[in-house]
Amino acid sequence: MAQGRIRKLIRIPPVSLTEFALIDRIRARSRGGDGIVLGIGDDAALLQPLAGHWLAVTADTLNSGVHFPPETLPADIGWKTLAVNLSDLAAMGAAPAWGTLALSLPHADAAWVDAFADGFFALADAHGWRLIGGDTTRGPLSLSVTAFGQVPHGRALRRDGAQVGDDIWVSGTLGDAAGALKLWQDNGLDVTRPAADADVEFLRQRLLRPTPRVELGLALQGIASAAVDISDGLLADLGHIAAGSAVGADVDATRVPLSGPLRAVLGMAGAQACALSGGDDYELCFTAAPGRREDLQRVSARLGLRLTCVGQTTAGSGVSTGRDDPGAGYQHFA
Amino acid sequence: MAQGRIRKLIRIPPVSLTEFALIDRIRARSRGGDGIVLGIGDDAALLQPLAGHWLAVTADTLNSGVHFPPETLPADIGWKTLAVNLSDLAAMGAAPAWGTLALSLPHADAAWVDAFADGFFALADAHGWRLIGGDTTRGPLSLSVTAFGQVPHGRALRRDGAQVGDDIWVSGTLGDAAGALKLWQDNGLDVTRPAADADVEFLRQRLLRPTPRVELGLALQGIASAAVDISDGLLADLGHIAAGSAVGADVDATRVPLSGPLRAVLGMAGAQACALSGGDDYELCFTAAPGRREDLQRVSARLGLRLTCVGQTTAGSGVSTGRDDPGAGYQHFA
Repeated sequence: MAQGRIRKLIRIPPVSLTEFALIDRIRARSRGGDGIVLGIGDDAALLQPLAGHWLAVTADTLNSGVHFPPETLPADIGWKTLAVNLSDLAAMGAAPAWGTLALSLPHADAAWVDAFADGFFALADAHGWRLIGGDTTRGPLSLSVTAFGQVPHGRALRRDGAQVGDDIWVSGTLGDAAGALKLWQDNGLDVTRPAADADVEFLRQRLLRPTPRVELGLALQGIASAAVDISDGLLADLGHIAAGSAVGADVDATRVPLSGPLRAVLGMAGAQACALSGGDDYELCFTAAPGRREDLQRVSARLGLRLTCVGQTTAGSGVSTGRDDPGAGYQHFA
Repeated sequence: MAQGRIRKLIRIPPVSLTEFALIDRIRARSRGGDGIVLGIGDDAALLQPLAGHWLAVTADTLNSGVHFPPETLPADIGWKTLAVNLSDLAAMGAAPAWGTLALSLPHADAAWVDAFADGFFALADAHGWRLIGGDTTRGPLSLSVTAFGQVPHGRALRRDGAQVGDDIWVSGTLGDAAGALKLWQDNGLDVTRPAADADVEFLRQRLLRPTPRVELGLALQGIASAAVDISDGLLADLGHIAAGSAVGADVDATRVPLSGPLRAVLGMAGAQACALSGGDDYELCFTAAPGRREDLQRVSARLGLRLTCVGQTTAGSGVSTGRDDPGAGYQHFA
């Protein structure tokens, strides 16, 4: 990968660090690991994928002011940049392995890069994910990760496997990040410091430090019939399963799991609206045959993670909500 | 990968196309291919790497106004975005396979995206490289590609394999793109239309449509001892081989291959300066034992590509130029 491609086509103000020094600061935080034949520092990294596995590849970009408030602290940006990508791997049932980072920065700022790396590598190290390349360029703050995971042949969680009559499940609680964003938009939340109110602080953490459900994705291999991560809101993302699998989806809005803090801060109606249409929680939504409920209860208990059945797939199309009697599928674990 | 992650944290002006529609326009241009189990459209793509091969991974970003003049036509941006990444794969001796594109656009503009795709996929299709994922976001124009190639075990061209006494080679001619850039900076070149002067037009094409030396990289497996692509200038990039291999490099500046158009437009001194320190040509610089000269002559003839020996590696360190008697290594093919 490029080591120094900042072309001085246009005048750039003096900076405190060269691009090379910036890359070195990041490289110093990256670690070797399984399958890395050659890491950062050549024209390309060399990797040895696992035999008997597919490589899962995802790419997501975060832009300042679009995907996070411009004042967000660099450590939180670092965490979230990787989290949204690991979440996509989780939704495929893939084990995180390696990836690249394209970092565009308006100023070469060592303190900023170090803090960014604190958040980024805290999450990377927790999942054994290794940075094996990337590029640092001058420009408006933007962060693109391409993440690779590995999943045994035939065990990936795709969007197109749901069957009519499957249960629809979600992990954790929904709407928390959207609730925090709403508070921020209403000038009721400072994302740069802990909130005095414990409920607000809970929501702030859910927005800034989402937990990619990697272990859940791995546990769902062989259990779930389809899966997505919830980045754009339950209804929108479940819609991808419905479209991909050619089924309908009936969701009972009253069963969508809401956190206590979200209800306390926004009230029931506001909380429910966030949970149905808000993104950024990075929980998983998946389908499974009703015969897998006991398996899922065990997964929930083992991971200490709430799994909630919020509806069923149907012979129709699209996603509908608000049925008063959503059938016998309701389950609520953990 | 994300299908629609534009968060409306801040007010965004009305656009003519949604992000989904933009992605669909790009997806329609992508093709299936070897090793693609699942392409664009799920949380991640699924790939089946070749047995007995390493995966080569590189990532490069181009930002408007930094890596290319802001007025550059979208088709030229598309070509160059992929070319700089394929060039990194070439420098590893890897065969292009797949990759992702993170596209940040200030406005959703169908005509722009279509023209960008024209240039991008023209090069992709020429090399059998397949787009398998990516992300489209709102923001200043920026393009990040992560490209994967495949190279048989042990056959990769690394930076750390040069031996003392190896010949130093470069492909093609150097400095052409830097010459074009200099003309542009001096207001002597309009990058958006063909130049009336044939020499200037040659240089313009070299800047806008660099040819990644993919076939050369593959041919150098087993012949070259080390390789880099020249993105930052011969002296800088050869310096990576010298440092990585713990050797010195003596370059005879008078042997660095210059095109006729570059000499015609800039004169010999100007041309030589561009060739030594200008980047953006994306030619390969590599080392090989003197015993491989005949092999390289055959490669040059087969590919119809000029290969020039410009010096030798030494027991010293760093890169030096200007020796009057660079030794017996001079060869000039094609």
